[in-house]
Order: sequence, then structure tokens, then C-alpha cells
Amino acid sequence: MKLLRVDMGRLEVRWEPVSPVFEQLGGRALIAKLLLEEIPPTCDVLGPHNKLIFTPGLLAGGGVTTAGRLSVGGKSPLTGGVKEANGGGTAGDTLAKLGFKAIVVEGQAQRGEWYVLHVTGDSASLLPAGDLMGLGTYATSDRLQERYGADSTVISIGQAGEYLMYGASIAITGDRDQRSNHAARGGLGAVMGSKGLKAIVIDKPLGKSIPLADADLFRTASRTFAQKLINDPKLGTQGSQHLYGTASIVGAVNEIGALPTENFSRGSFEPATELRGEHLRELVLEREGKVGTRCMPGCVIACRNLYVDDDGKPIVGTLQYETIALMGANLGLNSLDDVARLNYMCNDFGLDTIETGAALGVALEAGLAKFGDTESIFALLKQVGEGTIIGRVLGNGVVTTGRVLGIRRIPAALGQAMPGYDPRSLKGNGVTYATSPQGADHTAGNAFGARKEVNPLGVQGQRELSLKLQIIAAMLDATGLCLFARPPVIADPQLMVDMINGIYGWGWTKEDLDRFNRQVLRTELEFNRRAGITAADYRIPEYMREEPLAPHNAIFDVPDSDLDSVFETL
Amino acid sequence: MKLLRVDMGRLEVRWEPVSPVFEQLGGRALIAKLLLEEIPPTCDVLGPHNKLIFTPGLLAGGGVTTAGRLSVGGKSPLTGGVKEANGGGTAGDTLAKLGFKAIVVEGQAQRGEWYVLHVTGDSASLLPAGDLMGLGTYATSDRLQERYGADSTVISIGQAGEYLMYGASIAITGDRDQRSNHAARGGLGAVMGSKGLKAIVIDKPLGKSIPLADADLFRTASRTFAQKLINDPKLGTQGSQHLYGTASIVGAVNEIGALPTENFSRGSFEPATELRGEHLRELVLEREGKVGTRCMPGCVIACRNLYVDDDGKPIVGTLQYETIALMGANLGLNSLDDVARLNYMCNDFGLDTIETGAALGVALEAGLAKFGDTESIFALLKQVGEGTIIGRVLGNGVVTTGRVLGIRRIPAALGQAMPGYDPRSLKGNGVTYATSPQGADHTAGNAFGARKEVNPLGVQGQRELSLKLQIIAAMLDATGLCLFARPPVIADPQLMVDMINGIYGWGWTKEDLDRFNRQVLRTELEFNRRAGITAADYRIPEYMREEPLAPHNAIFDVPDSDLDSVFETL
Repeated sequence: MKLLRVDMGRLEVRWEPVSPVFEQLGGRALIAKLLLEEIPPTCDVLGPHNKLIFTPGLLAGGGVTTAGRLSVGGKSPLTGGVKEANGGGTAGDTLAKLGFKAIVVEGQAQRGEWYVLHVTGDSASLLPAGDLMGLGTYATSDRLQERYGADSTVISIGQAGEYLMYGASIAITGDRDQRSNHAARGGLGAVMGSKGLKAIVIDKPLGKSIPLADADLFRTASRTFAQKLINDPKLGTQGSQHLYGTASIVGAVNEIGALPTENFSRGSFEPATELRGEHLRELVLEREGKVGTRCMPGCVIACRNLYVDDDGKPIVGTLQYETIALMGANLGLNSLDDVARLNYMCNDFGLDTIETGAALGVALEAGLAKFGDTESIFALLKQVGEGTIIGRVLGNGVVTTGRVLGIRRIPAALGQAMPGYDPRSLKGNGVTYATSPQGADHTAGNAFGARKEVNPLGVQGQRELSLKLQIIAAMLDATGLCLFARPPVIADPQLMVDMINGIYGWGWTKEDLDRFNRQVLRTELEFNRRAGITAADYRIPEYMREEPLAPHNAIFDVPDSDLDSVFETL
Repeated sequence: MKLLRVDMGRLEVRWEPVSPVFEQLGGRALIAKLLLEEIPPTCDVLGPHNKLIFTPGLLAGGGVTTAGRLSVGGKSPLTGGVKEANGGGTAGDTLAKLGFKAIVVEGQAQRGEWYVLHVTGDSASLLPAGDLMGLGTYATSDRLQERYGADSTVISIGQAGEYLMYGASIAITGDRDQRSNHAARGGLGAVMGSKGLKAIVIDKPLGKSIPLADADLFRTASRTFAQKLINDPKLGTQGSQHLYGTASIVGAVNEIGALPTENFSRGSFEPATELRGEHLRELVLEREGKVGTRCMPGCVIACRNLYVDDDGKPIVGTLQYETIALMGANLGLNSLDDVARLNYMCNDFGLDTIETGAALGVALEAGLAKFGDTESIFALLKQVGEGTIIGRVLGNGVVTTGRVLGIRRIPAALGQAMPGYDPRSLKGNGVTYATSPQGADHTAGNAFGARKEVNPLGVQGQRELSLKLQIIAAMLDATGLCLFARPPVIADPQLMVDMINGIYGWGWTKEDLDRFNRQVLRTELEFNRRAGITAADYRIPEYMREEPLAPHNAIFDVPDSDLDSVFETL
């Protein structure tokens, strides 16, 4: 395998063999190690010393179902610590098939100069971005695919990344006309913008496949893995994930009182039924949109939808739970059409919907528009793309918005907005938000699925639950697997070991895998420590410890000592 | 002595005897200890657990010249650490004469409810602020003095504090119609705003004086102290401080190439001669304004001016070096009239001119107006008072402004804007900016005066120089002395010891004094450590280590190891 270094200061590309230090790493694991080894932890996030890393997970390229997620990493503008954000689409698989361990973007172009990186299997070049500047991610992807082929993969930033907004995401195209996969969290779109890189185009690796050290072992394991997903009652063709997508949980989160409503001021939303996955499916089918499609080729879960308007015209694909929570209930909006349109705008500007939904929530609390007032909320979001001052404030995320507008209720941990589970009513997630080296992030260890084993309102057991989930999340993010595909590998880690050994022949044991997973977190925590992040930063905001959340009147009361000791047994 | 607790949540006041822990403390020393003992170091700065402390220095009230500065303290919105900011006027002396060790404001009023605290020698009451809301500090002071007497002291916030802007200051009235003394730095005006406290009025302590443990010792020492100041060639009636005020150094700072020019992009400003103290004096005298007046009664240095316009009408008093540097050269403005008008606006809105000048510099780099373009710069600043979105951004200081506008060159340390000495050309100040527990602050240890002993462009000796100066600054801020009055007590610390023993009879030795001074810094560093501030935060911005500053093409190259070890011998 090889590593591509892109020096934006000198406008040079350089191929490197993979150093032994990185050889047995991929995705989130590679990002953590590379950041720790190669960048000054206290560096300016938007300066030349930060690096932006694109890397597939360890399982990418071999046809393992759901394993093609692309990890993007760097020091996070929002958290000031390590950041890995991943997205679906064809990039992860494509890079792996081309033999890439990673693309590492370094230095930065002169301010105001912008480039596109064009990558094939054995060449890479930087070209002036020219006419792409100021375009959203949809138009950017369209133009580049017109130029380089409809089957090429485009990774791009929109206006938000160009403006260096801390809430900026990175868009990744998928099969056919998919333009809405995002490595959304932590502001990595701003890092890409700071480098002067508008987009990366990767040619389709025609006929390529990855070498397999033990093809039989690999095929047996990967087939078993796929079959177990198909047989899983939640994930298979009759499962709620497949039928309703991630929105399947709207009702359940609302019922446990953890659905962020009107800037996290309540945990349940009267009209939540309008936002439920069941309703989403009904609407989409009725309008001849699509449900049960895939963000990555070969995925057996197929939770993706293509949300269309009354006339059957696509608005956005896929409309997901987090967006529905943060841009629906959190803004007092009860119409999926509204949420879908806000989602489209975020995707096009290249903005994290979680960060931006939370920022809008704070702006509404400050009185810039009314909760539930569609038109004025649209008008606010529109300004992010236009780069007006309020647009720049909102685009910089919830902490900046709160500071500028003088609002104390800022739902964030480690500088990053909380996703769609209020930590007061789902305390395991609170522990993850507070302690994850990634900042507030549901994919870093989501306790929602364990709500029947560990009382979400109780303090007991949350610390242990969060650690367990964080270790699993590290494994998924390092191997490129979708979060939803975890049940078979949790039930039988040997399956994961066999798939890895099948590709690489490393002879790992389950113990090696466990060590590997834990090492990801250890490396990240060490990077953050060197970046100056301390126990004082790994916290839930003060107001959530003091202001009770309806309907359970719950506060976040997991003691600091529990937060401080989460990783004691790591 | 007594301590007044003001509970803004319950709207109650409570008198307390001074606990032994605080007895031998005052000013900055008391603030550090009280914050460490009484507030959770990680608390929300604008939440109910932060406290706002008003305390005179140890020497206040006895008639020691220049010793009446009022220290205001709390956890700083900007730095997230300990904060003491002090200002002249009559508050320090008045509180001491009334027997106050401190006023401690706790909790917070309901959002949207505002109060005035009225204090006499033995009563204190909270009254609705009513008609004062939305007023600047000038009108607020005027109305309250109309109500409570022209000889009362008013401490107030303007619109900036009401909006909870992180750049908000606290204004303190002085003798006669003085309305422009400010405890400016660190955003304490926002803390006052968060409490729901618009102003404090303190009745004049008619005929009161502080008790003296050894009147002879005190009088001898305080007279000697005053006489030494009068005899000092720089400070006496023929001295540059008296003649030209703090603006006397404009020329010299420009000559060493450390004058912040156009957002700290150069260290010298061609038209700096227009901004010099000599020119200021000429102009003011010609227009029949005032020079050589006092911000505190009895001051023998008398560096204050009353800057007037062409028609002899007052614009602002006093126009000082830091404002001239940050709102003059740093904005490309070469007219003292312009700077004076910007200064007036900041004072009225209740804004730190250093933080705001730096924020405007960043905004100009971002293209919101042109350097040197008076009208558009005024138009920007005006919006802070109006609370428009860009106004709110600027009012929140330089870090927020840089983040929102996507500017990397942010001249700040520990979240607080740098004052008027670029650390690349005056490296001792760079060490102080980086390592002071107060954030970037020239009064925390200013190396400018030592530029002939320690080469300002060299690395050698800066660490030791900064430590020495920081210890002295702690002493001055704890005793209420003006920074300019330091020479006699540096030359002969026994003078300071005698003044303290003369008042309190504590029998301190010079060694006790030295321990006391150092303990201030130790306490502050410990508070900051508990607040989560680490070596990674005690730094100069990356770009200043890499982008050379004209005319000396200097970078800030004091090694991190020197910064990390500044307090090794504390």
C-alpha cells in the first residue's frame, strides 16, 4: 500500500511507502497515530501545521458489506483535539482498491488560491479550482464529474469550508447521483478550506481489487458477517432500520424524553409523530421517492432514503435521525419537508446538520427567529451560504453562536454540538459526550441501544457502558464499518479478526483486536492531553447539571469522578 | 473591616466579618484567594457560580498617593481563568474609608431583571435599575449622581455589559465629572451583566478615615514615598509621564518597532508622530483642554489629560497610550481626534479599548472596512452599542471576531487581546503575555521600561525579567498602587512594608512582602490549573512565531521551555 502526501504550500505531491508505524492501522486508528506522530498538538487548526487525512478503514475495498466508510481526520477546529469524521459514498472503497493507505494534505496554499486534487491509481495532480469557487457541494460535484467522469468520486467543500467556518463538513459522492454523504463533524471542512483545497476527484478503479492474504478465510468470514446482518431482525429486510432508516428511533427517543426540543429545553416534542420514521416512509413511498437504498454499494442493510417533495422531485437523500432531531424538534419544526429542505441547504453549503441545528436552536432562543417559524429559520440558514455576518456566526457552530448572542444554554461538549439525545435523559450518552476524545458525538458510543439494559435516567452503570461502547466505536471507525453493522462483530469478534487476517495475514487474535481498539482511544487521549485538554474540558455544560429537563425533570448528575475515571480500565 | 455579600438570586445583602483567610489580603491578592476558595474553577463564567468582587488594595483609604485603585475580579469570560482588572477613580479609596474589605456579588438575577446596588457606610440595598437600561456608562453615571449626589461614586456597565459581551468593561467615576476610569480587561463587564447588576452607587464617606495601627510609621513612609515620586525625573512635574501622560512612549515604542500597526502586521507606523504624547499635549493645551490632572485624588504624578475637540469641548479623559496604539496605529488611523472619539464610544458602551481595538484590527484585515478609513471604522464600532450582529461579534473581542471572520492572525494570548507592544519586537512582554495567569496584559509585567537592560529583540534574560516584573505587578495590584508609582517601592521595599505595617500593625518584614507578592501569582496559577488551563494555553499565537515583523523582521522565538519554566523559581 502507499501513502500520498499533498503539500499545498509547495503544490507538490509525493508518493510514499507506508511506514511500519502506520502499517497495521486504518481509518480512525491511522488518523490518531498520524496526528500524534506528525503534527504539533498545539498547532493552529487553520495553520500550515495541521494535516488533513483521508483514509479508508482496514476492511475497505474487499467487498465487506458496509465497510467502505471514508475516515477524514485532523486537529478539530471545534474541539481543539483529535478528530475523525466518516461518511459513506464510494471514496473509502475506491481508495482502498487503488492501494491507498491514506491521502495526507499538508501545508497550505497562499490565501485566496484554491485547488482541486485529481487522483488516479498512479498519478496525482493539483489543478486550479477556478470556476468552482463559491459553489455548493452539489454543483461542485456535478461539474467535476462532468469533467472527470460520472463514475469518479468527488470529495468537496461548499461555501462553509471556503469561509473557514468551524461547522463546515466535507461532502463525499456515492453511486450514481448521490451527493449527500458527509464527513460532517468537528469542522474538518474548515481545515480543508484552510489548505486551499476545494475538492478531490478520484478516478474509478476499473477492475481493481485488493490483494487477499487468505482468500478463503476472508470470504467465509465476510459472507457470514453479511448473512448475520441479513438475518438480524432489526437490520434485515423486515427490520426497522431498513424500513424506516435511522429515523426509526424518533418515536422511541421522544418517549424516553431525550429528544432535543427547542434548544434542548425539553426532552419531548408534542408533534414528534409527524417526524417519525414510519411517517417518513409513508410520505416518501406515496410521493414515489425511495426508501431502502444504499449509501455504499453492497450494503445489505440499506437504510437510505431519497426524500422527495409533493411532486416527486428529490429534496435530499438521505434524511436521517440526527438531522430530524436537531433541525426538526430542536427548532420546533414538525414538518419533514422543512427538515429535508434545511438538510439540503446544509449539505450544499457543506455544513454539519448537528452543529448547525444546535447553532440555530441557540439563535432562536436569542430571539433571532421564532421556534417553529419555517420562513425565518430558512432565512437565517440561507445566510450561512451567503457569508453574511450572522451566517458566519451560525456557520461557526453552537459555541460561537452562543457566545456572540449572549446565550448561556449551549448544548455542547468539548466545543462540539450535542447530537439528538439530551444527556439528562440518556445519561450514558452524556458520559460519552463528555469523555470521548472526539467531543459530543453519538457515534463515539451511543447508549440508546442499551436503554433496556441500563436505565437511561440512572447514574449506575453509565460509566462502564460508555467505555464499552467507546471501544466498539473505535473498532468500527478504524475498520470502515457502519455503526449499524456492529451486532455480528460484537457477538463474535472472531468474525472481525478473520476478515482482517483474511485480507492482511497478520495473524491477529481476538486479544490483539481488543488491544488495537483500546489503543485508538489511548492514542487520541494522548494527543488531546498534549493539545492542552484536561479533565476540566471533559464535561457536560453546567446548566444541564442544574436545569431539570421535562418530562422526567432529569438533570445530568453523573458525578465528575465517574467522568474522570471512564478510561481507568482502558 | 467588613465584607458585603450581595446575593443577586435572592436579592439579599449580607454583612460579614472578614474571615482570617482573607484578612491580610486586598485587591488582586484577595480576588485570587476568594476565587480559589469559593468558586468552582470550571464554572460557567456567566452562570450563577461565578462571583464578581470589588476590592480596594491594602493601601487604600489612608491617603497614600496613587494607591486608590479599585480591583475588580472574577473568573474571566475571555481567559477562562482568574481575572483582576483595576481602575482609578474614587471607588477604591471610598470603599476603604467605609471599612470595606470587599463587595462580593454572587448568584444571578432572573434574566431580564436588572438592579442597582446602593451602598452607604452601614447599609446596602438593591433597587430596580428601571430607566437606566440601555444607557451607556456616561448617562448611567450622570443619572445616578443626580439621584444620589454628585459626590457619590458610580460603578457601572454600558450596553456591552448588558449584552454579556466578552469585551465588556466596568466604568468607575472619579472626582467631579470624571466618568472614564475603567476596570477594562478580561470581560468582567459581562460578568456584572450576567448577575443582573447595572450599577453600584457608593455614598461619599464624609469625614471618614481608616484607622492606623502606627500613625507615625505610616505617615513617615507615605510622605517619603510621595516625595520620591515627586523627585523622580520621569514622574515629577518636569517628567514625561506628567507632561505627556502614558502617551509619552508612543515615539519610543514605534522606534523599537513594537507599535502594533494594521492588525499587528508591522511594528512601526509612518505617521506615528501624529500620535505622540508631545503632540497630544500641544493639541490639548492649544485647545484649552487639560493635561496634568489626576484620576485619583492626591496623585502626585498627575498623568491624566482631558482631550478636547477643536472647539474646546471634552471628547474623552484620559486618552492613553494603549488606546492610541490599538485604536490608532493598529487601525491605520493617524489622528488623535479619531482615536479620542473611538475611545469615548468604547467608554460609553463599556468596552475595553485594547480588546476592541484588536477586534477591529482583525475585522479590517477581513475587509469589513479599510485601515485608516475613519468613517467606516466608526460605523463598525457604533454597532457594538446598537447590538447588531457584527456589533456583538466585535464586542466579544478579538478571538471571537477572528473565528467568525475566518482570520488566522489573532493577536491574543489566553483568549485576551494583546496590548500595545508587539511581542516579536519586545520579547519580554511576549513572555508576560504568554505566561501571566491574567492573559495578555501589559500591566502584568511590562518589559518596555527595561529595554535598555535587556535587549527587547533577544531571547536571553526575558524569562527572568518577566518573572521579576510579574512579581512586582502582583504587589502593585494587591496594594492598589498605580503601575507608574513603582520606582520608590522597587528601590526600597521597606517603604511598602512600613506603609502596610503603619496601617495594619502586622509586623511584616521585606521577606513577608516578597512571599505575599509571590503567593498572589501562585494562587492565581493554581486557580487556572484547576480551571483546566495548561502549558498548551500559555503560549503566543503560532503566526507570531513564524511571520517576521517589520522593521526588524523579528519573530517571537523565546522557546516554549522558557515559557514553561518562568515560574520555576517563584
